[in-house]
Amino acid sequence: MSDRIRLGMVGGGNDAFIGAVHRIASRIDDQYELVAGALSATAEKARASGAALGLPRVYDDFKQMAIREARRKDGIEAVSIVTPNHVHYAAAREFLKRGIHVICDKPLTSTLADAKKLVRAAEKSDALFILTHNYTGYPMVRHAREMVANGALGAIRVVQVEYPQDWLTVEQDFKQAEWRTDPERSGAGGSTGDIGTHAFNLACFITGLEVESLAADLQAFVPGRRVDDNAHVMLRFAGGARGMLWSSQVAPGNENALRIRVYGETGGLEWAQEDPNYLWHTPFGEPKRLITRNGAGVGEAAARVSRVPPGHPEGYLEGFANIYSEAALAIRAAQAGQPVPDEVVYPTVHDV
Amino acid sequence: MSDRIRLGMVGGGNDAFIGAVHRIASRIDDQYELVAGALSATAEKARASGAALGLPRVYDDFKQMAIREARRKDGIEAVSIVTPNHVHYAAAREFLKRGIHVICDKPLTSTLADAKKLVRAAEKSDALFILTHNYTGYPMVRHAREMVANGALGAIRVVQVEYPQDWLTVEQDFKQAEWRTDPERSGAGGSTGDIGTHAFNLACFITGLEVESLAADLQAFVPGRRVDDNAHVMLRFAGGARGMLWSSQVAPGNENALRIRVYGETGGLEWAQEDPNYLWHTPFGEPKRLITRNGAGVGEAAARVSRVPPGHPEGYLEGFANIYSEAALAIRAAQAGQPVPDEVVYPTVHDV
Amino acid sequence: MSDRIRLGMVGGGNDAFIGAVHRIASRIDDQYELVAGALSATAEKARASGAALGLPRVYDDFKQMAIREARRKDGIEAVSIVTPNHVHYAAAREFLKRGIHVICDKPLTSTLADAKKLVRAAEKSDALFILTHNYTGYPMVRHAREMVANGALGAIRVVQVEYPQDWLTVEQDFKQAEWRTDPERSGAGGSTGDIGTHAFNLACFITGLEVESLAADLQAFVPGRRVDDNAHVMLRFAGGARGMLWSSQVAPGNENALRIRVYGETGGLEWAQEDPNYLWHTPFGEPKRLITRNGAGVGEAAARVSRVPPGHPEGYLEGFANIYSEAALAIRAAQAGQPVPDEVVYPTVHDV
Amino acid sequence: MSDRIRLGMVGGGNDAFIGAVHRIASRIDDQYELVAGALSATAEKARASGAALGLPRVYDDFKQMAIREARRKDGIEAVSIVTPNHVHYAAAREFLKRGIHVICDKPLTSTLADAKKLVRAAEKSDALFILTHNYTGYPMVRHAREMVANGALGAIRVVQVEYPQDWLTVEQDFKQAEWRTDPERSGAGGSTGDIGTHAFNLACFITGLEVESLAADLQAFVPGRRVDDNAHVMLRFAGGARGMLWSSQVAPGNENALRIRVYGETGGLEWAQEDPNYLWHTPFGEPKRLITRNGAGVGEAAARVSRVPPGHPEGYLEGFANIYSEAALAIRAAQAGQPVPDEVVYPTVHDV
Repeated sequence: MSDRIRLGMVGGGNDAFIGAVHRIASRIDDQYELVAGALSATAEKARASGAALGLPRVYDDFKQMAIREARRKDGIEAVSIVTPNHVHYAAAREFLKRGIHVICDKPLTSTLADAKKLVRAAEKSDALFILTHNYTGYPMVRHAREMVANGALGAIRVVQVEYPQDWLTVEQDFKQAEWRTDPERSGAGGSTGDIGTHAFNLACFITGLEVESLAADLQAFVPGRRVDDNAHVMLRFAGGARGMLWSSQVAPGNENALRIRVYGETGGLEWAQEDPNYLWHTPFGEPKRLITRNGAGVGEAAARVSRVPPGHPEGYLEGFANIYSEAALAIRAAQAGQPVPDEVVYPTVHDV
Repeated sequence: MSDRIRLGMVGGGNDAFIGAVHRIASRIDDQYELVAGALSATAEKARASGAALGLPRVYDDFKQMAIREARRKDGIEAVSIVTPNHVHYAAAREFLKRGIHVICDKPLTSTLADAKKLVRAAEKSDALFILTHNYTGYPMVRHAREMVANGALGAIRVVQVEYPQDWLTVEQDFKQAEWRTDPERSGAGGSTGDIGTHAFNLACFITGLEVESLAADLQAFVPGRRVDDNAHVMLRFAGGARGMLWSSQVAPGNENALRIRVYGETGGLEWAQEDPNYLWHTPFGEPKRLITRNGAGVGEAAARVSRVPPGHPEGYLEGFANIYSEAALAIRAAQAGQPVPDEVVYPTVHDV
Repeated sequence: MSDRIRLGMVGGGNDAFIGAVHRIASRIDDQYELVAGALSATAEKARASGAALGLPRVYDDFKQMAIREARRKDGIEAVSIVTPNHVHYAAAREFLKRGIHVICDKPLTSTLADAKKLVRAAEKSDALFILTHNYTGYPMVRHAREMVANGALGAIRVVQVEYPQDWLTVEQDFKQAEWRTDPERSGAGGSTGDIGTHAFNLACFITGLEVESLAADLQAFVPGRRVDDNAHVMLRFAGGARGMLWSSQVAPGNENALRIRVYGETGGLEWAQEDPNYLWHTPFGEPKRLITRNGAGVGEAAARVSRVPPGHPEGYLEGFANIYSEAALAIRAAQAGQPVPDEVVYPTVHDV
Repeated sequence: MSDRIRLGMVGGGNDAFIGAVHRIASRIDDQYELVAGALSATAEKARASGAALGLPRVYDDFKQMAIREARRKDGIEAVSIVTPNHVHYAAAREFLKRGIHVICDKPLTSTLADAKKLVRAAEKSDALFILTHNYTGYPMVRHAREMVANGALGAIRVVQVEYPQDWLTVEQDFKQAEWRTDPERSGAGGSTGDIGTHAFNLACFITGLEVESLAADLQAFVPGRRVDDNAHVMLRFAGGARGMLWSSQVAPGNENALRIRVYGETGGLEWAQEDPNYLWHTPFGEPKRLITRNGAGVGEAAARVSRVPPGHPEGYLEGFANIYSEAALAIRAAQAGQPVPDEVVYPTVHDV
């Protein structure tokens, strides 16, 4: 397809998890072609990983890739950054300053200082910066957001959001665990940075509210762990809503149990990432209703990011693909010198 | 049945909710006969309510009942106190000091001062004081407690407990709502006193842990409400476990959604009051298991308070009846001058 | 309570299951007092069981009980028959012909011949005959029936009903298994007679339809078993609806998984016995709704047989108790020479 | 990627459903590049649809495509046939006889005669014939099959399979409904052909059993409908197992509720397409276990067709993609003159 967006990738080498996810997500709606990569921090591994994927152009490091691709006529139009957190800023900067659109994994950066610099870099650049807070791509999350915005719940009072996992219940030493529990690479947050950010982002995305203040109790339960593996947070939102956020990596029986419940003056909503095609809605004083993706009563915000009929589940990869497809719409609009259409929604450098 | 325990009741008149529950609970296992009552704060209503129930002996007020029943040879052996909270202490005192066993609804009292006086009254009395924290009567709650005590989860790290309801989402003016939102009768706590106490008690009952410190954010969302209708609490338990407690009466879609999750070093448990015959157990690193009341893998603690085969649900009333039946065992032991058997479990004046 | 209905019991001795259930069910709403019993087929065991329960009057056999109780001024007004199936007819006849109301466990009898004779005996008697098809006592089953009758689903097209269990997956030799797999005592049906009858009855009760013809495939999977332990049945209802019924005692993972789904021209309903406080309703073209016992949208048919607020589960015993309480209303009406009120619903000799 | 398999497509034009699904499925694991198409039965629409997709080579009809592609050096290596059922045979024949591998949507054909001819055509050809019974691609279906094969359930006794939908509860006139209810295009079966085949195939796939005989009750409930919209079927499997199959398109509240339950001498399994990442397993006499995709206790058969960690749901498109990826492995093996590896599993012309 000649009109696929030419995509590069930073990180995502052989034993990475999230890189493969980004690659699948980029293919699902056929808007991208991965043509270049600097897939690892070490040149040798970068080359081996690029060869394994059969990439047309393989680079030893992201800076080299940014420089050379920017010079090519058929160079990459966008880059996916899927490294550990501490590399996000440095990599993004190189592409942003050369006008290459950036699609970056969350969290934004590993330090607040980097985050502020990245905001400035993004604001100075003509290129777009898309943060893959992928759970905002789920159709029923979009529907929840639309319902809140339309006043279906009245003024929001209470937000309960949580993201428990169990994989760090004991000490683990494989790659995914190693960098996520290393404050040098992950940042000061352990569960908070890795998954608490998702919960926080989701609460703000659905409700449209901002957190004004919070009180948190962070703990590292596993002996020797240098970052939190459990966090309890009480939230106060602007406008008076209250909330709780729980993130944990030591809760046996939870895989990726991101879940949000939103209660307003006239109704309540519940959504769970592990069963993402369902949204529970209770108008106060009426029976609870089960709204299904693409099913009866679903609005345009969800329908436009759904692919198959109701009862045929879409999952994590499709939700992730929606971020990529929104990004593609935004990138094409930018390339055409047009504004991004109103219905196109994606997280930016301001959505930590 | 000549050997039923003769029971009196304070409160529980015509339009009360919890009085009827206590009466059914007392009958299920055929250990009690209700023979006397002072069912309302006003003499006229007390008489009408007693007549409606066909009670043999009807009194105008609880003090009169305590005095006269204590004098009868066939006087009541135990009394159920099911009034609004502010009457608990005054009523309990009258019976305790006359050696009549007291079965009292929760919370203990409406003020801390009353609570302390009631503790002393109970300690001075030869009679027993049983607090109907009824959720401790559910078989699968008993099983959860037994599992924790047996070390099935290892050392406990995290406790998530919540009790959301939705009935006070708007202002209500019927009797149940009225006294529960009146600090004079309910006590300083709104949702905290009415249902947060249940959540707190359940967390302590199952884990065997004590709370050392807490931070709470209480809110009254409904305009004009004088007590909290939503409470977020972070808990620190002795020994290092952390927890969150949420109580709410303004969460549309929640009826009596008391739910607890307990996570330890080697496993996790989940239980929900609305589906009480199920207990979810995940040994870390193994599939989640669904343990059912009286089903495979259930231990003695649960089995001894179950009545029907697995798959035939027992509910709220049976759980409540278990408190009454435990109380009957304790009362009979006391009457025989014997210690209460080890396996008999019920909340006391110390279980707020 | 002087106005409790004086009740006798046939069967239900020490190691019986269903006798204890009937006794609890009779107590829950305080309408009965058990005063006499012939609790076993052997005189010695009957006496021991009666003594264990502290019954005022204990008989060696049901005929003796019928004769003597009928002569007493304070004799029993009703009798519960809770024996194995083959005794139902002989016992019921003795009481019916003496004007004592009969509350009989299902299935009606163990043979068709007995059933026909029992119908005649009931029709000749002034006394009532109530068959404890207890699942018709669940509030949400009543609500389902009311919805169908009110046309909420339109004309019924499809009925899927099933009752799988697993306890007979292997050969069992305890009492409950023994008589249920013995055609002399249970009747020709194994799973069909014990639980298929419940499924069949429930389908007819909720839909108000009659089965015109059926095709069945019965099987005894466990070697040596003399009655079916699995049955597949295709149903054709009068009026054109079609259905399937499955009963099984060899389906591991099923405890008492009675479940019914009813589909009509304009909507569908689902109900499951193990989670009986929920009824799922889908108006065609709208989201599925979860109707809860005593919750929003529940009608009078369910509300009048509910005791506690929504979210406080009622279970098997309360459903059973509803049959007893309906029977009490009918018995009191009969005693007063008045017709049974329209809203009172219970299965009779015609509800096999 | 130069080594993607060059793929053509027959059917799947602008307003088709399943064509888009095949295209996404072919992309997810990056094994195919769609380079040619005859996307509609009318030449004009075929050209418009091909242009809309940006296909390099667009043909007016499938025969023209088969002939011309077979002659090209860079012609398609495989073709996806996604037309209505009555075209399957005629289209498949053209490609099979030219050595082009065929990936064909189910059911095999619209008539038995066509099916027999297609079997012969496939057997005569060197090319592979892959039937997209896509539900066999779900990881937990693979795991269920592996468990049965490994004897985890003992000898199978009972199979309950069903596929209810509700979209044809009323007469519909859009394209998807139109051809599926037209016996000329869909074949003699309505619900049986469209979804009953899925249920039948799934039962055989998981259990490895063959159906020896069956009794069916087919019905068209919607006035004027020319094919069944509801079917009840009793099954007898070789070896003695029994089963029931229900397919319906008139069951309000069911979207694509394919569900299977398998019971053997020592255990039971349950799986539902709408929640495909879960498999329930009950070893007889033990608590039910929830096995999750890629979670604890999952074997190699499921793991090799999973992409993301447990708790991140994969869905319908990923299951479908697994068929495409298995096909790719088979095609590459065939191209290399090697046998298809044992672990590669896909439905063939023999899996109706």
